[in-house]
Amino acid sequence: MELTDFGKKLTGGSGILQLMDDLGKPLAKGIRPYPLGGGNPARVPEVEKAYMERMEALVSCGAFGDVISRYDSPQGRMSFIETVATYFRNLYGWDIDGDNVAVTNGSQSAMFYLFNMFSGTSSGRKKTILFPLMPEYVGYADQGIEEGTMVSIASKCTVFGDNTFKYTMDIEAVSSYMAEHPEVGAICVSRPTNPSGNVLTDDEIHELDVLAKRYSVPLIIDNAYGLPFPDIVFIDEATPVWNENIILSMSLSKIGLPSIRTGIIIASKEIVSAISGLNAIAALASGSMGQALAEDLIGSGRLVRLAREHVMPFYRRRKEMAEGWIRKYFDGLECMYHRIEGSIFCWLYLPRLRIPAKEFYAELKKTGVITVPGEYFFFGSKEQEEGRPYPHPHYDKCLRINYSGDEESVEEGIRRIAAAYRAQDRDVSAAVFSHIRN
Amino acid sequence: MELTDFGKKLTGGSGILQLMDDLGKPLAKGIRPYPLGGGNPARVPEVEKAYMERMEALVSCGAFGDVISRYDSPQGRMSFIETVATYFRNLYGWDIDGDNVAVTNGSQSAMFYLFNMFSGTSSGRKKTILFPLMPEYVGYADQGIEEGTMVSIASKCTVFGDNTFKYTMDIEAVSSYMAEHPEVGAICVSRPTNPSGNVLTDDEIHELDVLAKRYSVPLIIDNAYGLPFPDIVFIDEATPVWNENIILSMSLSKIGLPSIRTGIIIASKEIVSAISGLNAIAALASGSMGQALAEDLIGSGRLVRLAREHVMPFYRRRKEMAEGWIRKYFDGLECMYHRIEGSIFCWLYLPRLRIPAKEFYAELKKTGVITVPGEYFFFGSKEQEEGRPYPHPHYDKCLRINYSGDEESVEEGIRRIAAAYRAQDRDVSAAVFSHIRN
Repeated sequence: MELTDFGKKLTGGSGILQLMDDLGKPLAKGIRPYPLGGGNPARVPEVEKAYMERMEALVSCGAFGDVISRYDSPQGRMSFIETVATYFRNLYGWDIDGDNVAVTNGSQSAMFYLFNMFSGTSSGRKKTILFPLMPEYVGYADQGIEEGTMVSIASKCTVFGDNTFKYTMDIEAVSSYMAEHPEVGAICVSRPTNPSGNVLTDDEIHELDVLAKRYSVPLIIDNAYGLPFPDIVFIDEATPVWNENIILSMSLSKIGLPSIRTGIIIASKEIVSAISGLNAIAALASGSMGQALAEDLIGSGRLVRLAREHVMPFYRRRKEMAEGWIRKYFDGLECMYHRIEGSIFCWLYLPRLRIPAKEFYAELKKTGVITVPGEYFFFGSKEQEEGRPYPHPHYDKCLRINYSGDEESVEEGIRRIAAAYRAQDRDVSAAVFSHIRN
Repeated sequence: MELTDFGKKLTGGSGILQLMDDLGKPLAKGIRPYPLGGGNPARVPEVEKAYMERMEALVSCGAFGDVISRYDSPQGRMSFIETVATYFRNLYGWDIDGDNVAVTNGSQSAMFYLFNMFSGTSSGRKKTILFPLMPEYVGYADQGIEEGTMVSIASKCTVFGDNTFKYTMDIEAVSSYMAEHPEVGAICVSRPTNPSGNVLTDDEIHELDVLAKRYSVPLIIDNAYGLPFPDIVFIDEATPVWNENIILSMSLSKIGLPSIRTGIIIASKEIVSAISGLNAIAALASGSMGQALAEDLIGSGRLVRLAREHVMPFYRRRKEMAEGWIRKYFDGLECMYHRIEGSIFCWLYLPRLRIPAKEFYAELKKTGVITVPGEYFFFGSKEQEEGRPYPHPHYDKCLRINYSGDEESVEEGIRRIAAAYRAQDRDVSAAVFSHIRN
C-alpha cells in the first residue's frame, strides 16, 4: 500500500492514537486495568440523568424521529446554534448571533480544520501555529497536514513549597518569537490546559490577545474544560473572554457526552462560514444528537447550573482525593505535581525517573496501570526535528494521570505508580551493582 | 483573514456546501419549499420504530448512560465492529474479522480520509483518484486537499425507447487511462450511483476490479445506497463484492440515521489500521450512538430484513410514482431520465434547456423548488481546469431530483420543473421575438 505524504503523516503512530487505543481497546486477558490514561470524563449522575430525561422526552413526544431522520446544515443545527448564541450573548454580553457559532463532530475535528486553515503552505510560504506554553494537548501534535507546522515556546515554572508547581508563560520569548516569525498563522492554547491542569491567568490571556491582534492572527482558545460548561475550574480568577479575533472552542464531551462528538466554535462570522464550508466537504454535516439533547439544557441555563453544582464539585472532590493519595503514596519520594487549577488531569513530575517516561508508561501498563507519558505533550521544537529531546526539564519525566475514574482504581493506580517509581530506584541500584560485579 | 492553500481550497463555495445549506437552512419567508434537493432520505416508519425501540431499550436497561459516557476507540466501537464483521462474513462468505472494519463520522469523512491517503503529493509525485464513470457524487468533487487530484472518464450512454437511458462505463477509455497514468492512486465509484440512479453491472465491477489489481491500486466502492442495507436497489443483477483490494464504504444514513453520522468501512487490515490512525488525529473517535442503536439490529439480521421488506419497497413505490409524474407533466416536452436502478434520485436530462442547469436551478429555487443542478456532478476533466465545460453532452442539461420527500411535494416539484422547462422555451421565443421586433 503506497500512501501519499498526507497519508504517511497522518496514519502513523501518533500519541493520540496510542492514547485512544488504550482507552477503547481491552488489555490482555487476566490483567485488571487501572485506567488513568485517556481523557474519558467521569460519569456525574445528575448530568447523565438530565440527558436521559431529555432523551425520554424526545422519544415520548415523537421528536426522536425528527432528530435522527434529517441532516442538519454543515454549520450545525439551526435551533441549537441560535440557542448557544443567545445564551452566551446574555451571559457574557458578547456581541454574537447564530452566524458566530458552528458545530463540528467534536472539538478535535474543529481543531483539525482550524490548524490547517491557518498553518501549512499559503501562497508559497509555510505558515505555522504557535503554542505559547508547552506542554500542551497531545491531540494537537499531529494535526498539521504538512510537516513542521507546529511551533512552541517552553513554559516557565514557578515552584511552591508544598511539592507543587505552576507553568507560566514566557511572554518575552513569545513576544520575540512573534516579532521574528511573520509566518505564524495563529496562536493556540488550551485553558484549562490539558495535560497540566494549568489555567492561564487573565493577564496571560490578555497578553496573548494583544499579541495576536498586533500581528493580525487569530487566538484559538480551547475551552473544553472551561467556563461556563463543563466548568472544571477550581480557581476564581479565570474570566472567559471572546472577541472578534478569538476563536473559542467548546465541547459537550466533558459534560456527559464524550461519545456523541459535539464541538462548538464561537468565532467571527468569516471564520464560522469557512468552518461550515470545510465541514460540508470533510463531513457533510455534524451529528445532531448531542445538539438535540443539549439545546434546551443550554437555553434554560440548566446545563450551566449542572456544571456549577455537580460537575465542578465532583471533580474538585476527586482532585482533592488524588492529591491526598499522591501525598500518601509518594511520601519520601522526590515528586511534584502541577497545581490542579482545572481539567480532569494531574500532571506528575518525577525528577528521579531513571528511564524515559515512555518506558515507565510501558512498564506500568504491564501491571494494568494506564497513564499517558509526558513526552507526547511536548511538541513543536527545532530540537525535536533534529532528533533531540524537547528543551524542557520536565520533558521525559512526567506522567499525565486522569483522576476521574472510580476512586479505588485511581488510588490503586497512584499507589502502583509510586511503588514502581520507588522500585526503579532500587532496580537501577541493583543493575548498577550487578554491572559492577561483572 | 489569510487562509492557507488548504483553507482556500476547502472553505470556498463547493457544490456540496450549497446542497447541504439548501437542506439545512430555511428559504426566505413566505416561500413554500418543495425539497427535491439534497440527499435527505425518507422516513420509513418501520425503520424509525426499530431505532426508537432500541433507544427505549437502552434507556430502560440503563445502557444509555454507558453509551454516552465513554469514547470508543478511533477504529470504532469494538462490539459493533465485531458484529458487522461476523454478519458480513456469514452473509457473503467474505474472509474478514473485526480488524477489517472501521467506523467514521459518516461515509463522507471516510471518503475524505481515503481520497487524501491515495491522492495528492506522494514522494514528490502527484497521485490522483480516478472516477471511471462521470457523472459522480458531488460530495467527492472538492475532497482532495490538493488541486487537480480528481480525474475522470465520461460515461457512455445507452438510450432506450421509453425516454430513459443508462450510463455505461467506457472500459477502453478507462483501461488506456490506467495504462498511461501511473499516478492514479485509487479508482472510485458509487454503486448505486449518486446522482444518476445507475447501478454498475457485475461485469463493469469485475473489469474495474481486474484493472485495479493489475495496477496495484485499491478499488473504492461507495455502497451508501446498496446491499445488504439500505438495499435501495431495484434490479436483481447486482452482486455485492469485496476482496482484499476493495474498500467498501457503507452507511447508516440511508437506513434511518442520516443525522447520527455513521460510516462503515470494510477493507484490508492495513487500510483499516490507517483509517483508525487518521480518525484518531482528525476526530479523536467516531460517534457511538449510531453504532449502539444499530448493533443488535445488524447482528440479528433485523436491519437487513427491514431494508428488504420496508426500505426497498418504499423507495420502489416512490420511484414508480416519480416516473409517473415525469411522464405526466413532461408530456410533449423533450425530456429523458436515467433508469432508476437504485438510490433515491431521479436524474433528469433536459436537452432543450436554454440556460445552464445551474441557472435553471436558481430560477426554480425562487419558486421554492430545490433541486441540484447537474454541473456539480461532472468533475475531474482537463477541460474544466482550462475553464471549459466538462466534455459530456449532459453536462449542463441535467437536474438531480430526490424523489423521497412527501408525495405532494415531489409531485408539485416535478410539475413546476416541467412548467418552468416548458415556459423557458416560450420565454426564449418571446425574447427572440422581442429582439427581432427591436
